[in-house]
Amino acid sequence: MCELLGMSANVPTDICFSFSGLMKRGGETGPHRDGWGITFYEGKGSRTFKDPEPSCRSKIAQLLEQYPIKSCAVIGHIRQANRGGVNLQNTHPFERELWGRNWTFAHNGQLTDYRALEVGAFMPVGNTDSELAFCYLLGQMKDRFAKAPRNPVTLARFLAKHADVLRQKGVFNMLLTDGTLMFAYCTSKLHWLTRKAPFGKAHLVDSDWEIDFSQETTPTDVVTVIATEPLTKDEPWNKMDTGEWLMLKDGVPVS
Amino acid sequence: MCELLGMSANVPTDICFSFSGLMKRGGETGPHRDGWGITFYEGKGSRTFKDPEPSCRSKIAQLLEQYPIKSCAVIGHIRQANRGGVNLQNTHPFERELWGRNWTFAHNGQLTDYRALEVGAFMPVGNTDSELAFCYLLGQMKDRFAKAPRNPVTLARFLAKHADVLRQKGVFNMLLTDGTLMFAYCTSKLHWLTRKAPFGKAHLVDSDWEIDFSQETTPTDVVTVIATEPLTKDEPWNKMDTGEWLMLKDGVPVS
Repeated sequence: MCELLGMSANVPTDICFSFSGLMKRGGETGPHRDGWGITFYEGKGSRTFKDPEPSCRSKIAQLLEQYPIKSCAVIGHIRQANRGGVNLQNTHPFERELWGRNWTFAHNGQLTDYRALEVGAFMPVGNTDSELAFCYLLGQMKDRFAKAPRNPVTLARFLAKHADVLRQKGVFNMLLTDGTLMFAYCTSKLHWLTRKAPFGKAHLVDSDWEIDFSQETTPTDVVTVIATEPLTKDEPWNKMDTGEWLMLKDGVPVS
Repeated sequence: MCELLGMSANVPTDICFSFSGLMKRGGETGPHRDGWGITFYEGKGSRTFKDPEPSCRSKIAQLLEQYPIKSCAVIGHIRQANRGGVNLQNTHPFERELWGRNWTFAHNGQLTDYRALEVGAFMPVGNTDSELAFCYLLGQMKDRFAKAPRNPVTLARFLAKHADVLRQKGVFNMLLTDGTLMFAYCTSKLHWLTRKAPFGKAHLVDSDWEIDFSQETTPTDVVTVIATEPLTKDEPWNKMDTGEWLMLKDGVPVS
């Protein structure tokens, strides 16, 4: 299995604190030694850092823990391989362009009987169930909508319907973003919380790092973080149910 | 204008030496302050590091100068913006998937009357002439070939024909790769050289770094480097002519 990290915010926000906790699980406090990746959006543009090496000893991960890239949407992933070899083409997140936007996807879980999924216009480069599921979802989106639906909930319901199809094939926890919207779907394990004023302190589960968000934010900031397992000890994480989805925009759920 | 860097090799090779020379031109020995990017292929997988900040003061660029990522195909770019704002979505290289391969593109030059170009299945995310030209080329490739042509020269001639169309609209020096093939096209300025046994020494134009390739290589290594301007003082760079193309595979030109 793998672990997921997502962030949606109403102002460009750095994710060094949460990222640091996740990276520790990549071979140090957790068993996810088979690569890691993280995508940051800045406006419509995005950049992905990825490495098939364990994150706990990656020089690139070390740089990013100290290098505050400010972003309104982030997807991160650490991998414990089950389908597909440990190499760069199988390292999440995966990216494709649709409707003139960069879409980024990461998956936690394992599918069976997935090779027959229709991928349409998007072909996998590697050989994971995850990238195939991503191509399936994007292919369905492209076939159904000539351009992005105006209402994010329309897209969320459409994605949830197809995620329900994928859930029939195994465990399918996932994150998908175009830098504006952030869609999360849970079949087994996914948690989220929204940080907003009044901000308090939080302490990472995986290291001694404690942060006082009131020192790092302005009163109008709103940030939602999604993670496979809660990253902090002292905050009220919401556990998602099987088949539950969450669509975020500007740091808050839309429904 | 911008500067391009490309590499094709028959064994995974690091590009720290050439990259270091290029990065100096990003605001120190050259005026290309409007961002930089570099894509490395490892097998079919690729990863791109990019930054809208000048390369000469980028922490990510500093890391990569010291961090030998071994690759058989690399495209790098430093930008001096003329079309499109200085931001991440306009930062080269650009990437899209076609035929189950990641294609990466970077451009040096400036086009006019380019907005009417047919882009077909690939839509630009940013607003540069470069990304639009890339989408045009990929759209033509997808329309013409259901899968990659078996003979690289077939693809090279097809690409050169469409690059000739783009050249009518301005300056169009470009690099395109899928990690196996590396295509270069010149309208004004592009140089290349092949390093193979017996290997000698080379000295960067832009800094004091001298390298003895005989210490870094095995006798069967073959590496071709392409750059807008020669990166070393003491090697016989080939200058490309207007309308000339070069298709590389495993470090050597195919024809």
